[in-house]
Amino acid sequence: MRSDFNLILLRHGQSVYNREHRFTGWTDVGLSPTGEVEARRAGRLLRREGLEFDIAFTSLLKRAIRTLWIVSEEMELEWVPVTKAVELNERHYGALQGRTRAEVEAEFGADQVHLWRRGYRETPPLLDPEDPRCPQFDRRYTGLPRDRLPRAESLADVTARLVPFWKERIAPQVRSGRRVIVVSHGNTLRALTKEIEGISDHEISEVEIPTGAPVVYELDSDLRPLSRRLSAD
Amino acid sequence: MRSDFNLILLRHGQSVYNREHRFTGWTDVGLSPTGEVEARRAGRLLRREGLEFDIAFTSLLKRAIRTLWIVSEEMELEWVPVTKAVELNERHYGALQGRTRAEVEAEFGADQVHLWRRGYRETPPLLDPEDPRCPQFDRRYTGLPRDRLPRAESLADVTARLVPFWKERIAPQVRSGRRVIVVSHGNTLRALTKEIEGISDHEISEVEIPTGAPVVYELDSDLRPLSRRLSAD
Repeated sequence: MRSDFNLILLRHGQSVYNREHRFTGWTDVGLSPTGEVEARRAGRLLRREGLEFDIAFTSLLKRAIRTLWIVSEEMELEWVPVTKAVELNERHYGALQGRTRAEVEAEFGADQVHLWRRGYRETPPLLDPEDPRCPQFDRRYTGLPRDRLPRAESLADVTARLVPFWKERIAPQVRSGRRVIVVSHGNTLRALTKEIEGISDHEISEVEIPTGAPVVYELDSDLRPLSRRLSAD
Repeated sequence: MRSDFNLILLRHGQSVYNREHRFTGWTDVGLSPTGEVEARRAGRLLRREGLEFDIAFTSLLKRAIRTLWIVSEEMELEWVPVTKAVELNERHYGALQGRTRAEVEAEFGADQVHLWRRGYRETPPLLDPEDPRCPQFDRRYTGLPRDRLPRAESLADVTARLVPFWKERIAPQVRSGRRVIVVSHGNTLRALTKEIEGISDHEISEVEIPTGAPVVYELDSDLRPLSRRLSAD
């Protein structure tokens, strides 16, 4: 018997920064050609499995939005309502944004970079408050209170903004029986997986979310997983 | 001095049915390659003029949605909130949907076809209630009351569903100072133009909305036009 509560999580396809091994965070870079192919494949996989969705959530960043658009096209679900939310943005990578991993490792050492990437509470170096890359200078974030505009975030910070959004906006949709897709980012989906699966602060360092391979959950009425599988060729 | 109240209307680019001179209505056909080019050009035109939008409205039909997506990409406004509404769907063309204009003219005569296409109160032949193309058999329209699911519509019918949506959903956004884009369909935008410009039932037969050329309005505080211009090369 299949569950009445269904949720699909999808990480955006490869971006042009992923391809160059650059820290991305809130930098609004597009998909690479490989990323477009990954998104298209994800949509075809879901379609082939007979899966659908009734409502979609994504971030304010084009690599996630465009992934959702491509998936929607492949599934002929362009008409589905979409909520775009800052709470689903990638983790803000602070002053590391735009720099390559090799550069940052040369400056700070591989161990420190590993901690920033994988640790739960480690926060990367903050953006300078006057840095033009700060979110308050970006029109899409105007209207948000200043304390919601980070200069860098730990995974714990991402969890703190994501979990209320999950509980207040996404979970009620799942509970109402709507089939939900969330198209978001590597660290944001790690935080969401942590919440849904009850993973500890320590163990989350081992969790990786692949690009372009949808994670399909069947949930019980408390929205705890009955099953989790990766939709892949 | 520029107005505080701004509105952009855009008809979707050429669809594969437009190209074949087929009546389309609620048939959910995609853009033709020419239509994709038209959409991209519209986005570039708006960008070159320094125009932006803060909120977008479109229909539940992919040719309009995809036009909006392409425009948003060209303007780097993917993050803007989008409302997709059945009220912005094209006029339902009833039993003519999918047929070519030549076929229909051969059957009913060119004068009758002209009346169906241009008249205000003429309703095309209804779809049979059991026809699988009826909207109640399409998942995107479930939840709508049966009287909102037409088997064919006159332009007057379109006006009757569109005007309340304009007044209740779109106009308040314009009045709040948000810059609004509406990406919709030939007849739906004729109905909206009729309402905004106060065009009579008779004169509306002469109004044509071109594909891919944005209509840019500056409005007064009663949302009557101070200026209207076509954004074109």
